Amino acid sequence: MKKVAIIMGSDSDLPVVQKAVDVLRDFGVPFEVRVLSAHRTPDEAQQFAKSARENGFGVIIAAAGMAAHLAGAFAAHSTLPVIGIPVKSSTLDGVDALLSTIQMPTGMPVATVAINGAANAALLSVEILSVYEKELEEKLRAYREAGTNKVLEKDKEVREKFSC
Amino acid sequence: MKKVAIIMGSDSDLPVVQKAVDVLRDFGVPFEVRVLSAHRTPDEAQQFAKSARENGFGVIIAAAGMAAHLAGAFAAHSTLPVIGIPVKSSTLDGVDALLSTIQMPTGMPVATVAINGAANAALLSVEILSVYEKELEEKLRAYREAGTNKVLEKDKEVREKFSC
Amino acid sequence: MKKVAIIMGSDSDLPVVQKAVDVLRDFGVPFEVRVLSAHRTPDEAQQFAKSARENGFGVIIAAAGMAAHLAGAFAAHSTLPVIGIPVKSSTLDGVDALLSTIQMPTGMPVATVAINGAANAALLSVEILSVYEKELEEKLRAYREAGTNKVLEKDKEVREKFSC
Amino acid sequence: MKKVAIIMGSDSDLPVVQKAVDVLRDFGVPFEVRVLSAHRTPDEAQQFAKSARENGFGVIIAAAGMAAHLAGAFAAHSTLPVIGIPVKSSTLDGVDALLSTIQMPTGMPVATVAINGAANAALLSVEILSVYEKELEEKLRAYREAGTNKVLEKDKEVREKFSC
Amino acid sequence: MKKVAIIMGSDSDLPVVQKAVDVLRDFGVPFEVRVLSAHRTPDEAQQFAKSARENGFGVIIAAAGMAAHLAGAFAAHSTLPVIGIPVKSSTLDGVDALLSTIQMPTGMPVATVAINGAANAALLSVEILSVYEKELEEKLRAYREAGTNKVLEKDKEVREKFSC
Amino acid sequence: MKKVAIIMGSDSDLPVVQKAVDVLRDFGVPFEVRVLSAHRTPDEAQQFAKSARENGFGVIIAAAGMAAHLAGAFAAHSTLPVIGIPVKSSTLDGVDALLSTIQMPTGMPVATVAINGAANAALLSVEILSVYEKELEEKLRAYREAGTNKVLEKDKEVREKFSC
Amino acid sequence: MKKVAIIMGSDSDLPVVQKAVDVLRDFGVPFEVRVLSAHRTPDEAQQFAKSARENGFGVIIAAAGMAAHLAGAFAAHSTLPVIGIPVKSSTLDGVDALLSTIQMPTGMPVATVAINGAANAALLSVEILSVYEKELEEKLRAYREAGTNKVLEKDKEVREKFSC
Amino acid sequence: MKKVAIIMGSDSDLPVVQKAVDVLRDFGVPFEVRVLSAHRTPDEAQQFAKSARENGFGVIIAAAGMAAHLAGAFAAHSTLPVIGIPVKSSTLDGVDALLSTIQMPTGMPVATVAINGAANAALLSVEILSVYEKELEEKLRAYREAGTNKVLEKDKEVREKFSC
Repeated sequence: MKKVAIIMGSDSDLPVVQKAVDVLRDFGVPFEVRVLSAHRTPDEAQQFAKSARENGFGVIIAAAGMAAHLAGAFAAHSTLPVIGIPVKSSTLDGVDALLSTIQMPTGMPVATVAINGAANAALLSVEILSVYEKELEEKLRAYREAGTNKVLEKDKEVREKFSC
Repeated sequence: MKKVAIIMGSDSDLPVVQKAVDVLRDFGVPFEVRVLSAHRTPDEAQQFAKSARENGFGVIIAAAGMAAHLAGAFAAHSTLPVIGIPVKSSTLDGVDALLSTIQMPTGMPVATVAINGAANAALLSVEILSVYEKELEEKLRAYREAGTNKVLEKDKEVREKFSC
Repeated sequence: MKKVAIIMGSDSDLPVVQKAVDVLRDFGVPFEVRVLSAHRTPDEAQQFAKSARENGFGVIIAAAGMAAHLAGAFAAHSTLPVIGIPVKSSTLDGVDALLSTIQMPTGMPVATVAINGAANAALLSVEILSVYEKELEEKLRAYREAGTNKVLEKDKEVREKFSC
Repeated sequence: MKKVAIIMGSDSDLPVVQKAVDVLRDFGVPFEVRVLSAHRTPDEAQQFAKSARENGFGVIIAAAGMAAHLAGAFAAHSTLPVIGIPVKSSTLDGVDALLSTIQMPTGMPVATVAINGAANAALLSVEILSVYEKELEEKLRAYREAGTNKVLEKDKEVREKFSC
Repeated sequence: MKKVAIIMGSDSDLPVVQKAVDVLRDFGVPFEVRVLSAHRTPDEAQQFAKSARENGFGVIIAAAGMAAHLAGAFAAHSTLPVIGIPVKSSTLDGVDALLSTIQMPTGMPVATVAINGAANAALLSVEILSVYEKELEEKLRAYREAGTNKVLEKDKEVREKFSC
Repeated sequence: MKKVAIIMGSDSDLPVVQKAVDVLRDFGVPFEVRVLSAHRTPDEAQQFAKSARENGFGVIIAAAGMAAHLAGAFAAHSTLPVIGIPVKSSTLDGVDALLSTIQMPTGMPVATVAINGAANAALLSVEILSVYEKELEEKLRAYREAGTNKVLEKDKEVREKFSC
Repeated sequence: MKKVAIIMGSDSDLPVVQKAVDVLRDFGVPFEVRVLSAHRTPDEAQQFAKSARENGFGVIIAAAGMAAHLAGAFAAHSTLPVIGIPVKSSTLDGVDALLSTIQMPTGMPVATVAINGAANAALLSVEILSVYEKELEEKLRAYREAGTNKVLEKDKEVREKFSC
Repeated sequence: MKKVAIIMGSDSDLPVVQKAVDVLRDFGVPFEVRVLSAHRTPDEAQQFAKSARENGFGVIIAAAGMAAHLAGAFAAHSTLPVIGIPVKSSTLDGVDALLSTIQMPTGMPVATVAINGAANAALLSVEILSVYEKELEEKLRAYREAGTNKVLEKDKEVREKFSC
């Protein structure tokens, strides 16, 4: 199976990124976690992107805050699908990271998820691999069913307790 | 090869969506274009989503404006990767569509691209299929090179004409 | 008397929704509280909406955060008045939920109230029922008078204590 | 049948409000159109609100731009459901009107629709009356079906013309 | 000397308004503090506004949060200068109150100050009275000098401690 | 009678400022119109502010766009009431000018009106002078009545033409 | 004298960038104009940045729209001062470019100017060179005086024509 | 070597400004720290700006919050490069300071850095001086390398700990 790369621009993004790690572990998808900065280690970031496909990666997830150029930098150096996670920092509630990640010019798409949406970034990477990996499709279906069941249980609880 | 679905919430989104059609045609990726509304034809939209994978689709692209629920509705009924294009409408410059598309709750990711970013949505779908379709990887590389060359030509022109 | 449905997209919205419960209880209007998700339990949500009128409901209140599609989903499947409560979540101060709830396309209105405005959503549902339920009109008038009197008392206190 | 009041803060709002007039005429719901300003004719506005219920009105629709206080002013003087239409003016894209209309304090709800959403305001008023007016329910269902059919036709056209 | 009215829409605004009280007390300008709501006590608010000039008031200060209609309501019923203080509430950081207060239509100005800017509202009222009250001009000048001196002292401290 | 100063930061603001000129002319209030820039002619601006009171001015109106420092600069050098008009420029819809004008620190209030709200700035200056100038109070009342009558006429027209 | 590099991310930015060209020509500062894209020609952009100082450049100006990573990319590969011009594109009024350019992480500053502020970017580059180039200081002073004089002339015109 | 001026509008900005002090100390660049207010001590601010170049300063850094006019005031009175730090205050997350600092009119650039970006402001001042001060260029390169190495170490740690 193709691997997923989870890359953060700074190790301070780890608490956000952790949820992506957890999801991929649950799905049994192999992954590699890296700290690579578009500005502080541009050469390493570029090299990673350029050789990602031949190194067995199928999707690159990039998480960064503020003027978040990380996902775009990977998109510039790889034709693999790149998923961007805009990370909320101390001001502006993540809006700077959101716009810096999503508003990419024609030719270099970044598949952007919600602010701090690391779990969804990982799920999206699983969905992408599932297009050709039958086994992941089944796991995704089971995951969805579990989500549905949790809501149905809560519905039962709340309905009984509050209606009148 | 898997097909790509390009779905718009209203036929008024066609001028935006046209660019996705053009890109997929250029790449020779098979696709189907539909008008399906999360609110006006919810049953058809749901049915499309539920059977998309078995009908040979690999990616669903959904374009909608305002309170853009379309991509989210497909995400709720399919485990295929869903790409959302927020469409700019007469007020708010597409910010309403952007937030309605991208801020999905955990469990249902939508791979969102820039406001009106239809060409990038199509390119992203090609990148997703390219994970397992070798031939698309090569086409993507050629497309990138063409983009690079166009900039290099412009660079030459501008450099000569303006520097002093 | 017609019943009011109070539906939340996740049980984490309960602290916000509680105020709607309290208001309806005070007014003696019958109601049912549910957890139904536009994305996690779309079939149950749809079914609820489709049969709400015949099941004796007069108004549907839907509370959700982020890309809040819940109220719109009910609006798509019912011709009853649907009231939307945009719920503030961990980023963006509820602006995402506000725009996702209110910016509905022509044909599917959602009567949206303030961010986290659950008490007002309940009062609005009472006002709607009061159009034909004389008894509620009187209760609303009394409620208003109580509000006026509380302000007048505070006015007296503050005026005496601070003016000079 | 109860009447609907359509009130605009200035006659310059007429092009927006016209769509509400058209919808109500189509539904055969009796209505009265007025120009009343929360600031320029506060006494007339107040008087209208205070006697609206006894004058046979069931819903008040109020359209205003900028610091849009009109809907709130009606809400303060009537216990009828008040629907607010935020009108876009020459700056700020209607955001000022949206926030001034929707962010009402507890006790005085305004059922707010999208910026310039006059057609939806009228539809919402019909939905409100339909809670007790069986005949309107049927008209709403027919209106919805017509909307669905229009999308289905467009879907057919687009699907044939663009897919490949 | 003319009096200043300090009016808040709810007694929960008192912590913000307190600073206006303090400033006016320091300047020895007579004032009256009231709780009057544009929505909950519209009649009292209107009556206050209508008779404010003949009751010896020269300026009306109005503080309110959310869809802040209070200052506008006074402006509608009085030709005295009305100063608006937008109060920050639990969401939106006071932007709703700012726009609801300042974006008044032509004919009804509200002199708006910064979000939570109660001290400045009071200073502005003193400046307004100072146009014809010589004594206040001198007090304002002294107040300014004190402000200047405080900065100069801090400048000396900081300059010595940090420069190198 | 005290004079009103109308100052713009650039002569390109003249189309906006013209409405303030018209209002003051209608009210017969003496005024002086100037182009003074906080950044390009800071010395002249400062000198004007410092001697404004002794030169017979009662109010200073300052109109500027973008990082609009003009009103604040006058506030820093005069204890007269300063009214700020945020002018909309080619980007950001006047929000930059609005925040730069209104968010003044404690001690230096600027009475800010709506974006491009020049007519209201002039009316506010008349209201300020009216605190002690009886004659202006009467003119203001007449102006308001004219405004009210215009709305009432429009109301009559619209009511007859559109209601049904 | 050191040269200034003016780099745009796309030749469509030329109408904005032209003003920077004009200013540098007026000041007689040598410059080179280039089209280099952070995403389409990352290698050329990087190479330019890395050798800019040894190639005689003193300042790099970078203009780009949307998710504007260009200035940041130069900052990552050069220790020369980098000036960023956020360019307004078809949506969001340049806010995306502004935040993507200015919100740089610690270690990689970008000296950002106003949206579309190309003339100011050029003036800032002249100011930077003027720190050690005496001759530029004098030219800057003359430029400022010309600006002041233009305002003073306009002031005279407007003052005579409009005051009364 | 030229000195750097670090000026804050209020001593409450000191916690933000401290980081600029630390950076300059690390680089061994001489500097002076001042508290000067555009509004409270305009004369001192102006005098500082006017004589800064002849007093041996090469760059002026100005930090201010809210309607942050400080950097612009220095720009108006000096042809030295002026760096603006927008400081976050109690509302609006620093957006008011950002726009007030960066949106300067043509002729008076302010080199603006991120909200609260004091370290970057200091680094930018070092980069500016480095254009002609060879020694600073080397220190900047070393600083960058240290930054790169820190990321590489974290990368190693994270990669080993989390990948699977």
